[in-house]
Amino acid sequence: MALPEGMVQAAPHSTGAGDLLQLLRDGRPRTRSELVAITGQSRSTIASRIDRLTAAGLIAPAGESSSTGGRPPATFAFNPGGHVVLAVDLGATHASLAVTDLAGTILAQEEGPLAVAEGPERVLGWVVSHGLSLVQSAGRGAIDLASVGIGLPGPVEYSSGRPINPPIMPAWNDVDVPGILTRSLGVPVLVDNDVNIMALGEHRTAWSHVSDLLLVKVATGIGAGIISDGALRRGAQGAAGDLGHIAVPGGAETPCTCGNVGCLEAIASGQAIADSLRAQGLQARTSSDVVALVRSGNIVASQAVREAGRHIGSVLAGCVSLLNPSVIVIGGILADVGEHLLAGIREVVYRRSLPLATEHLRIVAATTGAMAGVLGASAMAADAVLSPAAVDLALS
Amino acid sequence: MALPEGMVQAAPHSTGAGDLLQLLRDGRPRTRSELVAITGQSRSTIASRIDRLTAAGLIAPAGESSSTGGRPPATFAFNPGGHVVLAVDLGATHASLAVTDLAGTILAQEEGPLAVAEGPERVLGWVVSHGLSLVQSAGRGAIDLASVGIGLPGPVEYSSGRPINPPIMPAWNDVDVPGILTRSLGVPVLVDNDVNIMALGEHRTAWSHVSDLLLVKVATGIGAGIISDGALRRGAQGAAGDLGHIAVPGGAETPCTCGNVGCLEAIASGQAIADSLRAQGLQARTSSDVVALVRSGNIVASQAVREAGRHIGSVLAGCVSLLNPSVIVIGGILADVGEHLLAGIREVVYRRSLPLATEHLRIVAATTGAMAGVLGASAMAADAVLSPAAVDLALS
Repeated sequence: MALPEGMVQAAPHSTGAGDLLQLLRDGRPRTRSELVAITGQSRSTIASRIDRLTAAGLIAPAGESSSTGGRPPATFAFNPGGHVVLAVDLGATHASLAVTDLAGTILAQEEGPLAVAEGPERVLGWVVSHGLSLVQSAGRGAIDLASVGIGLPGPVEYSSGRPINPPIMPAWNDVDVPGILTRSLGVPVLVDNDVNIMALGEHRTAWSHVSDLLLVKVATGIGAGIISDGALRRGAQGAAGDLGHIAVPGGAETPCTCGNVGCLEAIASGQAIADSLRAQGLQARTSSDVVALVRSGNIVASQAVREAGRHIGSVLAGCVSLLNPSVIVIGGILADVGEHLLAGIREVVYRRSLPLATEHLRIVAATTGAMAGVLGASAMAADAVLSPAAVDLALS
Repeated sequence: MALPEGMVQAAPHSTGAGDLLQLLRDGRPRTRSELVAITGQSRSTIASRIDRLTAAGLIAPAGESSSTGGRPPATFAFNPGGHVVLAVDLGATHASLAVTDLAGTILAQEEGPLAVAEGPERVLGWVVSHGLSLVQSAGRGAIDLASVGIGLPGPVEYSSGRPINPPIMPAWNDVDVPGILTRSLGVPVLVDNDVNIMALGEHRTAWSHVSDLLLVKVATGIGAGIISDGALRRGAQGAAGDLGHIAVPGGAETPCTCGNVGCLEAIASGQAIADSLRAQGLQARTSSDVVALVRSGNIVASQAVREAGRHIGSVLAGCVSLLNPSVIVIGGILADVGEHLLAGIREVVYRRSLPLATEHLRIVAATTGAMAGVLGASAMAADAVLSPAAVDLALS
């Protein structure tokens, strides 16, 4: 499938083959006559668009309709397996890759250590070689690859796919990640930060019936992804959801790496908890050490995680007043150790926010675990090639 | 025009007359042949939809196209003046009404004292009688009225149009405002809180090229309206933008009417400033008194407004991190008195937020002044009747 490089703005009110595909994305098979009736388009227009979508592998014949007599008419349906996408979730020291179909079903996956600090050349080279192998493991060829979705552990300008002053991966600043990967793989590449793709993954997998969701990742750092009216909201520069540098109401004036004081991340992140436990004489260097201490039953560590939850809760109470979500999903390594973190968060949010906003509010732990990122990257990549404008351009 | 009562969910991928109208809403006249070419629909389908949209007054013949020979073909364009909407902005003690066309052009307007605390029966009765007179003043009849948009000074559940525990209008709690007005006026009624319609009005009038905008109203109380990816975001229960009850980082533990302490509204609203000035021996009972003192050159009052701006700024810094808007518009009576409030807000937001989020951020005073509310109510009302689903239903 010849797809446009980069992103395309949807042409207003295009009613070409792309719109016909949107109609079929619900998976229900339909006959040519049904599509003529639904769209008001002429029989010849529908026939030609069906032919082109079928040739592109985006829809496929789906058996025959029942008929009252004569030869039963053929039906057509969305064909999610016609193409695959490569979904990539890069952490500071770890990479997770998956090849999925266009509906997010995982066909092959791989996990491995990979230090993002080694720089874009080595890391993206690894992504390309392992990605292509993984496509083969899924029994497909590079020709079947429709797009790539990739999450990075730092701020990304979504419109260009370039990291912007990413603290833990300075060599990536302003690097044209989509350009580099598109040159090697020949397909559109979508890049976003790791928390946004995690929010997308949780939303599509576990909460697709909910319109307003906030995903909060509590790990070495703290960040959030905002789903509002059913879609990820990235803000003007793609910097939305930067929870870690909001000042904690009533919090200590702890200095933060950003140059300010009293930021949530400086007080309640996995790193901040580790630092405070170490100051109390415990063996804790990283957020993983904190998790290990809590798992071992250490009460001081459990209390510190709960107190961090309270600080996160006092910032989240403001987010609840501002955004009125119906679900807050807490993910990241610190959410994986029992109820300590959630208990602290719930305590403050329910005390601090107004009844109208909390009456129907649920605060829950993430359910997709380590897979949320790749599932979100897959959804982002598939959405980009299935949009009406992308399909119209690809088939034009 | 027979329009459905209440709101209708857009049917996915409807491609009826409603979609044809969306295409024409840009105002550009098009021939039947051009519409056939753009949509891929058959000539007979286009002809029938043009006929129905014309009969409904939603489009109109717009002269003849230039032609290379023979009789030049007729063109058709959106007809914003075919119907009118009634736009209503209710404050605590004041009502603002306007009759506009479907493009928001004001045809007639009226302002008057009206105490919302008198209850829904009297207030909505006033709206109906004055609204119908105003339609006549605009030279139109009740038959031309397509819809009503109304803003109320309290929380509203947008999906039902019912006020939810509104502090300054307790008699309105859970009242079916759309039901009451629809029974009298026979058209769809959309209800939202006053800050949301103000955000919509400012966005459509002054910032339609901007996708991410936060409008903050600073008056007796404090609230916000959020435009994200070009549309108003109301949250799960319509309670989004409730800035007034976010805890101020580093703020005093001042008790708030909501039962919590340290809320922004308890520290920095017009009422809070008036209270603190009165405690210092000044004549200040209301936010209007604060404005009068500042206008008279009182330095203590000016300093108090600037300090309130700093507290608002420290909450807005968190909003900037969370939402990454490109514009913050400050409206309300306290924004009308020079640069004191904005100076305080800017001082803290630019110090406190991260560079990626503030680099392109503008913080400005509202430009539409007292008209923002009715202009937003007009846009909300017109959008509701011009949506594809509403048009398809009305013409079916």
